[in-house]
Order: sequence, then structure tokens, then C-alpha cells
Amino acid sequence: MSKKLTKREEDYSKWYNELVVKADLAENSAVRGCMVIKPYGYAIWEKMQAEIDKMFKETGHQNAYFPLFVPKSLFEAEEKNAEGFAKECAVVTHYRLQNDPDNEGKLRVDPEAKLEEELVVRPTSEAIIWNTYKGWIQSYRDLPLLINQWANVVRWEMRTRLFLRTAEFLWQEGHTAHATKDEAVEEAKLMQKVYADFAENYMAMPVIKGVKSDSERFAGAEDTFTIEALMQDGKALQAGTSHFLGQNFAHAFDVKFTSKEGKQEYVWATSWGVSTRLIGGLIMTHSDDQGLVLPPKLAPIQVVIVPIYKGEEQLQKITEKVTEISSELKSKGISVKFDDRDTLRPGAKFAEYELKGVPVRVALGNRDLENGTLEIARRDTFEKQLVNQSDAVSVIEELLEEIQVNLFEKAKQFRDNNTTEVDSFEDFKTIIETNGGFVSAHWDGTDETENKIKELTKATIRCIPNNAKQENGKCILTGKPSSKRVIFAKAY
Amino acid sequence: MSKKLTKREEDYSKWYNELVVKADLAENSAVRGCMVIKPYGYAIWEKMQAEIDKMFKETGHQNAYFPLFVPKSLFEAEEKNAEGFAKECAVVTHYRLQNDPDNEGKLRVDPEAKLEEELVVRPTSEAIIWNTYKGWIQSYRDLPLLINQWANVVRWEMRTRLFLRTAEFLWQEGHTAHATKDEAVEEAKLMQKVYADFAENYMAMPVIKGVKSDSERFAGAEDTFTIEALMQDGKALQAGTSHFLGQNFAHAFDVKFTSKEGKQEYVWATSWGVSTRLIGGLIMTHSDDQGLVLPPKLAPIQVVIVPIYKGEEQLQKITEKVTEISSELKSKGISVKFDDRDTLRPGAKFAEYELKGVPVRVALGNRDLENGTLEIARRDTFEKQLVNQSDAVSVIEELLEEIQVNLFEKAKQFRDNNTTEVDSFEDFKTIIETNGGFVSAHWDGTDETENKIKELTKATIRCIPNNAKQENGKCILTGKPSSKRVIFAKAY
Repeated sequence: MSKKLTKREEDYSKWYNELVVKADLAENSAVRGCMVIKPYGYAIWEKMQAEIDKMFKETGHQNAYFPLFVPKSLFEAEEKNAEGFAKECAVVTHYRLQNDPDNEGKLRVDPEAKLEEELVVRPTSEAIIWNTYKGWIQSYRDLPLLINQWANVVRWEMRTRLFLRTAEFLWQEGHTAHATKDEAVEEAKLMQKVYADFAENYMAMPVIKGVKSDSERFAGAEDTFTIEALMQDGKALQAGTSHFLGQNFAHAFDVKFTSKEGKQEYVWATSWGVSTRLIGGLIMTHSDDQGLVLPPKLAPIQVVIVPIYKGEEQLQKITEKVTEISSELKSKGISVKFDDRDTLRPGAKFAEYELKGVPVRVALGNRDLENGTLEIARRDTFEKQLVNQSDAVSVIEELLEEIQVNLFEKAKQFRDNNTTEVDSFEDFKTIIETNGGFVSAHWDGTDETENKIKELTKATIRCIPNNAKQENGKCILTGKPSSKRVIFAKAY
Repeated sequence: MSKKLTKREEDYSKWYNELVVKADLAENSAVRGCMVIKPYGYAIWEKMQAEIDKMFKETGHQNAYFPLFVPKSLFEAEEKNAEGFAKECAVVTHYRLQNDPDNEGKLRVDPEAKLEEELVVRPTSEAIIWNTYKGWIQSYRDLPLLINQWANVVRWEMRTRLFLRTAEFLWQEGHTAHATKDEAVEEAKLMQKVYADFAENYMAMPVIKGVKSDSERFAGAEDTFTIEALMQDGKALQAGTSHFLGQNFAHAFDVKFTSKEGKQEYVWATSWGVSTRLIGGLIMTHSDDQGLVLPPKLAPIQVVIVPIYKGEEQLQKITEKVTEISSELKSKGISVKFDDRDTLRPGAKFAEYELKGVPVRVALGNRDLENGTLEIARRDTFEKQLVNQSDAVSVIEELLEEIQVNLFEKAKQFRDNNTTEVDSFEDFKTIIETNGGFVSAHWDGTDETENKIKELTKATIRCIPNNAKQENGKCILTGKPSSKRVIFAKAY
């Protein structure tokens, strides 16, 4: 495989696929639609997990673990949820293999080992969890129940893409139970805010917070709160969702509690999740034709130091200086890699770390030793500066912060430049077909209109923004009255 | 359910099951053999994971993630491994459900959605991983490959017990590839040492390091290095295993590399794992008739503070003092819970934290405020002391260290007291049938003898200890010559 990436403007989709593989993030596996997350990609996920998990715990949530399998009878209990996921379920029907009598050395499913009840590999865990909560909740004192699970889930998608849509993916799913409707709605909104904070402050990915229309809502939810980001190719990415589930699962699994007043009441629920899909969003928000660009807060390696040397003696002197600088960087919590491999030239190393999106690259050569300098290059702008060694640590520290801010600002500017208000269906179609991006337009609030627009343009309503202002307008398709604009886009 | 636990000497197995449920660690789920790990149990697992993961990274390993499913054709490629796991595999045969035409509102497996090739839910990941490594390894420069995965696996066990043996469990599985046999053997032994260090230094659970006999070896391994612990009921627990896999998987998946000398050679492999089973071992090593006893290093809550008060005013004053002390404790990295619930009396809280194994309990009442004192109780010995508030933090700090050491020493003493050298089969049977424990005896080295002893006594060879001394002896069953003693026990 060539080292060079396809350019984004040539073929964005090809660029993405190549980048994911060449930057050593992930690859397709022998299992249809399932990916292997390689160490470098997984290290990004670990950084994401650590931050998100901290945010969950700070908002009072605890982790737990529920079974991978959902018995069919539980799976089908909440009808809308079941209907939404039934078409993409991996189903376990047998629990044993045996030697194939017709095929020596091969195995076959043992027909005697058929399960009485089939098991669905969880596409999401509401059913198994609410069946469990039934035993945990008796009184208002047991509420709220604020639980999160880090897990793998499986949805048998027909068209898959690394990170963005895979049959198996890693995610977290929060499942909370509340005594009142208001409290559950507040929880769902709080987690939307947590997701938005994470996306913006760590991923440097600006998002619009909003609520989904009826037809885009999670199967089994009353309301789905979403964060929507805009990718470089003008398509939207749903980056995280938080659902107010009403009492649907409480009814389906008969989960009631005794209120302070001694009455039996059904419990109110939320669920919310983000997944390894976020890594796809991270890539498509910041990366360029040279490869991955990572915000410092999520970069597994924040600083790479490359020695420029001839012979062992020079390398040794450089190594001494580097050890000094990198131990100071490490003491400040900055992750540093010193790449002294003798099998690659410096230029090849530079290209490799550009491809892998390491935010700051330091080069230190023999002349630098004489002059007490080193060269610092930033990945986001490719700017280089010659710096005194004594200033290196403070310059790098500031630079990491600056890159984090710059990536967010750049992405926000892109998003704002590619958000268009339109007031006619002609303009709508033109924008969607040419520039793409977020299109802010009036809509009459009906499923029918939404579906018609989707049919005609492939654009869907990404969300009704939380901060949409009241404004009298007319639906771009039907001309019927509308009181606020919604955000349309083609989406991943 | 009664608050009181069954006593260990009455029924150890019942005591264990009750403890797991009452201490809120885990419970059985609606899925046969699969457990729900409750927040308190999961918090212990998180603490374990954090430490183990750090140890892996310090020894040069990186995390990655491989698919949940293994296509049958890959699964059967390494014959011994396949044979070892075939009888306990959950198998996915279909990828869709549909409405059941005969049963309104119900779903059934869609017969049209049968997979061309069945997918095995991973019981272990050698097959899928070595199929992937084939693409990653070309040259000696790609070696060693040192990778670990945190994941869920499924083994369709017929008799299951919470944590100890469940159909689905959480674990880590390391999978490494090496250029030479020696290096792979060293790696397998290194990981055995890492496991032993973790067991002894964090779990306070003494272990014997040794190697498995042929018949107890992992399916597909050349050698299985194990750590074996002794539970309070005299049964052994295999707590972690590290396998030298030879070139078996390299042959099965045709994984070769070009050596420095330019030759094509097969790669050498190891794999190694510990699982949520460790939590079962932790429980059965330290806990007592009052409930769980946790070593401080793995306790989610290390110190609980219970206020003894009448009325709001007293509580407020106590709270002020507690806030001061607990923020000092927290600044030292000690996890503290202040339990000011007004729905439970202090005595009930004491019982709850005894059940949950919190290492140190602090009580602070109105009289203590006047006297500048507080009461500190340790969970392991139930000893209490009255301490000046100004000394509280240093006393607690020391106490946590002392408890950690004491638990290990106590467990080690128990293990030593219950390890018996025997030289005749009569004595062997008597010990196994009465006291149990580890029995150190000579064995002639054959499968046949091992199986016969198992048949007659239910005891198995736990391991041939690494530090077994050379000693001429006679096999307890056959009288044939033997050069060292091995460890027998009944096992979980």
C-alpha cells in the first residue's frame, strides 16, 4: 500500500478509509462488518473512556455490567424497541459444536444442542437491564438509580465503515430510573450536556444540541436528545444521544415503586450512549491530506522527539539532553515518545508522526546541541520554530493548549461557514446538492413532510436545536406555518 | 432475605452465594449462567483492572480490541484448541428476527436470515487474533508483538457459580508473538510473575507458581504456567494462567516472519488471562461470617465515617469535623464515604459496612466532639480504638497498610497450615477427604496415574511448583520413581 493518502477533495470516503488503516487505527476483520481496533486506535478510545467515565462519576453515576445476551422473550417485551432492532440482531440458537461426521477435522453445530429460547446478542441493553431493575426497585428510596455500562453491542448493519458503522462496536450505555418525569427529563438533558462538553472540550468538535424529530427518535423513547457535528465533507454525524424513555420500559417490565405517599407508581427512565463512532467523528473533524490530526487532550502521544544524528556518539549526547527534557515534560503529565529507531531516517519518522497526528514534534540534532536549541513543529498548522532548550518545556506546554483551542476554533468556523439558512425548497435542494453542510429551515412538524424531503434530497432532520429562536416562518416544502427552524443535513 | 449470613462452617457454598448477593456484588440474571455484576462488585473489578492494566503497560504491552465473533472455519483451524472449547460454544446462526405470523406481538428467528457460516461467540480469542496477526507480522522487526485485550467471553458451562464459573465472564487476554522460543517462554513466565505479584500485593492472596501437568494444560498450549491459591474451605482456585503456545497457532494460521538472516520462520506465541473469577478468589480468601473482607488496595470504599447524633444541630457540627478529616484523607488518595443517611441507625450502618467489607470504619459522636476524639474500627480483626482527631489521618493511613499486610499474612498462614506433605496413598486420601488443602506428593508423571487419582479422590494436580526441590521419591499411587513433589487439591 502506498504511503500517500488519497486527497480529501478527490474522494473523501476513500481518504477516510485509507487514513484509518494507514494511521494504524483499525482494520476490517475476518468477520463481516466487525473491526479490529489496533493499539493506536484503542489508545485513543482509552483516553476518551477515561475522560467520559470521570464525567459520569462526577455526575453521580456508577458502573455495572449486564449480560451480553437477551432472551427473546425479554427482547420483545417493549414492542417499539424490539421492532426497531429486530431486523439487525445476531441470534444465538445453539450452545455446542461437534465433529462433523461428513467432514473430518471440521466442526458443525450440534443439532441436539438447540436452545429452548433463542438469545439475542444485545444491540442495546434496555430490555435486560429493566428486567433486572424490577428486582432492585421497590421504594422511592431506591431512586434515582444512576448506572452506566461499558460494553460491546452488535447490530447487523448491511453497509459498514470502520468506526462509523460496524456490526460490533464498543460503547457506554447509561440506564437510569427516576421517581418523577421531570427528574428523568432533567437527567436526559444533563447527559446531553455532558456529551456536548466532552465533544467540544476534549474532541475539539463543536456540536449542536437539539432534540430529534419523531421519525429519527430512538425506538422506545419519548424524546431523543442529540449532539450533532458537521464533518469536513458537509455531512452530519450524530455523535451521541440521550433518551427520555418515559414509562415505556417500566410498563413493559412492570417496574413500580412505592412513593413517599405510599402509592404504587411506574418508574421513569432514561438511557444514553456514545460509542467508538466518536473516533470516526474525531478523524473527520480535524484530519487533513497528510493524515490524522489529534487534539492534544486525546492524543496517546502528545510529543514525539526525533534525534538527527550521525553515529553513536552524537546519538548518545542527544539522548542525554532528550532524557532531561522528556522527564520534565512527563512530570507535567505530558506523554512523550523518543523515537531513536535506527531503521528509519528522520524524514520518514516525520511523515509517520504526521500520519498518526502527533500534535507536537521536536527535532534535536548535533548543531542544536552546540547552539542549545531545538526545533518544534506543530501538526495542525505545520509551523516550525527554533527554541532555546531551556524554554522547550514551557513552549510545548503552551503549544499543546494552543493547538487544542485552534482545532476547536477552526472546526467551529468551518461549521459556521457551512450552516446556511434557507427559506425556499429550491434553495434547500441547491445547498444540499452542492455545498452540503447544516441547513437551517422551517418545517411544518409532520412526519410526512420530513419523509418527503428525505426522499427528494436524502437530507434528514438532524435536530430541532435547543436554542432555536421562536420565529414565524413557512415550511420549505408545504408552506404551512412553522414557529422555529430545524437543522437538516445529509448524515453518516 | 434475612440479613444474617449462613455460617461458613455450616455450609461454605451457601455462605459464599449469600455473601455475593447480600454484599451487593453480583446476582444471577435472566440468562442461564450469566451474571449481573452490581455497582459495588464492578467497582472492585475496576480497581483490579486499573492495577493489572498498569502492570501490563509497564511490561511493554498495549491494549487492542478484536471481534466478539469467530467464524467457524477459523475456530476449527487449531484443532486442539477447537476440540477443547467446541462443547461449550454459544453459536450465532441467524442475523435477523421477524414478526411471528402464528403469534401476534411476538418475534421469531427469520429463517431467511441464516448465516452462510456460523459464528462462535469467543470463548477465547487465539483463533481470531492469530488470523489477524498473519497480516501484521512479516519481518523480525514486527516482533515481539505484545498485545492485551479487555473483553467478555462466553463458555457454555453447565454448572455455574457467581464469579467463579459463569457462562459469560469479563477478563483480559494477552496474546503475544515472538521470534524465538526462548523469548516466548520468558514472556509466558513473566506474565505468571505479574499475576502472582498482583495476587499477593493487591489481593493479599498468596499463590503457588507452577506449571500444569499435561492433562490440565490449556487446549492448544505446550505449557501452561499457573498461579494457584487456597480457599478457606480447603479447595484450590486456579487464579490466572499464562500459556506458552509454541508454534501451534502460527502453523494453524500460517504466520511466518523473515528472520534477520533472511529465513522464513514460524512465529512463537503466548497467551495469558485473568478474569472476574479473581473476585471469587478475593471473597473466599479473606471474608468471614460477618461478610466481605476487602484488602485496602482493592476496596472501593477504604474508610466509612458514620455520625452518631441526635438532631440537626449535632449532625451539622459533626459534618464540619468530618469534612475536614475526609478532605485530608482524600488528599492522600484514600477513598472515604460519609454516611449521613437519616433513614438508618448507626448500628444498622455498621452491619452494612461489615457485610460490604469496608476496611476501616470511623464513628464520630457528640461526646467525641467535646473530647476531640473519634472511634476507629478495623474490619479484619474488629478491633476498635479511641483516637485523637488530630491523629486520625495518620492512624488511618497506617491502619490501611497494616490491614493489607495482616490479610496477606493470615491467608499465608492458613495456606501453610493447610499444605501437607504425604508419602502414602492412604494418607493422601485421608487428608483430601478430611482437611483438604494443598497436598504435596510424589507422582510418576503419567496421565494415567493422574486420572486414576482424580477418579479415586476428586483431587487433581494443581501444578508442579516452580520452586519444587529435586528429591528422590516414589509415586503415591504406583510407587514408581519421582524426582519432585507436585501439588494436589480438590479445586473450584
